[in-house]
Amino acid sequence: MGCKESEVIFTSGGTESNNTAIKGVAFQYQNRGKHIITTQVEHPAVYDVCKQLEGLGFAVTYLPVDREGRVSVEAVQKAMRPDTILVSVMHVNNELGTIQPILEIGQWLKQFPKVLFHVDAVQGIGKVPLRIKDSGIDLLSVSAHKFYGPRGVGILYKREGLIIHPLMMGGGQEGGVRSGTENLPAIAGMAKAIRILEELGSVEMIRLQKLNQQLREGIATMEGCVVNTPESNTAPHIMNLSVPGVKAEVLLHALEEKGFLISTKSACSSKVNEPSRVLTAIGIERDCALSSLRISLGRENTPDDIQQFLKALEECVSVLRTYIKQQPAPAHRK
Amino acid sequence: MGCKESEVIFTSGGTESNNTAIKGVAFQYQNRGKHIITTQVEHPAVYDVCKQLEGLGFAVTYLPVDREGRVSVEAVQKAMRPDTILVSVMHVNNELGTIQPILEIGQWLKQFPKVLFHVDAVQGIGKVPLRIKDSGIDLLSVSAHKFYGPRGVGILYKREGLIIHPLMMGGGQEGGVRSGTENLPAIAGMAKAIRILEELGSVEMIRLQKLNQQLREGIATMEGCVVNTPESNTAPHIMNLSVPGVKAEVLLHALEEKGFLISTKSACSSKVNEPSRVLTAIGIERDCALSSLRISLGRENTPDDIQQFLKALEECVSVLRTYIKQQPAPAHRK
Repeated sequence: MGCKESEVIFTSGGTESNNTAIKGVAFQYQNRGKHIITTQVEHPAVYDVCKQLEGLGFAVTYLPVDREGRVSVEAVQKAMRPDTILVSVMHVNNELGTIQPILEIGQWLKQFPKVLFHVDAVQGIGKVPLRIKDSGIDLLSVSAHKFYGPRGVGILYKREGLIIHPLMMGGGQEGGVRSGTENLPAIAGMAKAIRILEELGSVEMIRLQKLNQQLREGIATMEGCVVNTPESNTAPHIMNLSVPGVKAEVLLHALEEKGFLISTKSACSSKVNEPSRVLTAIGIERDCALSSLRISLGRENTPDDIQQFLKALEECVSVLRTYIKQQPAPAHRK
Repeated sequence: MGCKESEVIFTSGGTESNNTAIKGVAFQYQNRGKHIITTQVEHPAVYDVCKQLEGLGFAVTYLPVDREGRVSVEAVQKAMRPDTILVSVMHVNNELGTIQPILEIGQWLKQFPKVLFHVDAVQGIGKVPLRIKDSGIDLLSVSAHKFYGPRGVGILYKREGLIIHPLMMGGGQEGGVRSGTENLPAIAGMAKAIRILEELGSVEMIRLQKLNQQLREGIATMEGCVVNTPESNTAPHIMNLSVPGVKAEVLLHALEEKGFLISTKSACSSKVNEPSRVLTAIGIERDCALSSLRISLGRENTPDDIQQFLKALEECVSVLRTYIKQQPAPAHRK
């Protein structure tokens, strides 16, 4: 990770890392100020933590993003206030794959040493390079099971010397920042997963990029399909698409029957029957957002998988769209 | 556990369960009042959470205990204030093995439905029976690795209908009380460990009690050894003893050379070179507290183990005490 051993705090996962970072700064430095800057497209483990802190008297600015889901350095600059204590921006958006300008934001923030910079890197690790030190990052969240490590373990990178209010008090493990008996087997598993990431290196990233390109080109030619993930500055493993008029759940189950397991929105919010907050933030219409699917590519996927998936998608979309056309519009039914 | 499925929240372990329960009540009900009652002998995952909350404007009463380490119902009654929102008392003390009068406290507290009752049951599960419902418990903490389950997983029992402020916000897992991807393999392991506890039932508890008695009787006849764990109303798996004049660390390492792994104080605070807070609370003198050792008995221990341990202890104590006698008193040295 390009940091010191003492800067690594083991947690139970990405959610805990995010909560520890944000609440840890909020409670530690609330006497300095109670303003936090984040974005409209954060994962719930950041976004909902900020919402929760609003209930405890903190003020939060949720920065808008452009059509590609990207926040601008200028937006951060404009949002800065004398009472700002924390800026939290994710590295890679989990629904779109958009890469945020972490390096630029972090370098600009260096002139405010008392404004801390947290990065939710859960989606990016092993897929998109990120240099913690160059980017002036104070706190960074990682989850092991996102890169083939075990569940129930993650990392909070905490810059040396930085004091935060511990989320969990107790036996004083992890330098007192994260108490609780160390989950050694899971930590060892995560360490192994990180070593494998290093061994695979950029070869795997390039392989995923090629699969991604194959997928994008296939979808682009398909009638009724819209790719929501922007073309450039995106992670190689996420592809968001919509089939307007077809409900995401219906298409998801049709694809499941053909052996393809994909997701609507993020797995962490897929139970709520509302259009994705992230897609809404980039200005996608409700109808299109409600039909959005998220395809994740991984280490085991091959070009043949992509080809078969494209074939299955085309068949499903074709059948479902015909069905829709035969039905009266929903507003007239019943 | 004698409760409903919906009352079980999976966490990363006992520390998280305790932090979630106490902070969850504190932040949720701080408008009702900011007073918490606990004891002087709680595990750091309760005690230090309360200390941390004092820093955030909460008032905490740390109830004293008697010579056996036991808190009285009367002490709880006297400490009650109109602004009390939470009473947190452990089931079994981790250093002494003392069982607290949870049933009596809980039944008395039933007349105050707005005062919540949290029990840290980490040390007791599988060793000392506890009826959650009869005891009027609102929140109860459990850690899997204390009963042969995997590390990194635990339970927070939360009474149906009780709302608490989530320690971790995010994807809304566990009914929104504990977000984060569920650690399914660890949860399955814990469930298996609970089933094994049930299968072994009281037979194992009685077996441990016999080992405990054998150990106590052996130590009682040993010159220079003092048993700190009270004789009755204690858990069968914990035995605290002191060898006044011999530093705990020295005796610990001497026993380790003979193949016996025991602990000074609790594993969660053994790095701090201070007399145990728990032993100090029961009025044990500094010299005696600094020489205290905690022996834990478990499923794999046999009567033969106890016999061999007693022999090893006697040898070590004999050698170390002779050595002490030959040295000038520490106050005169240097």
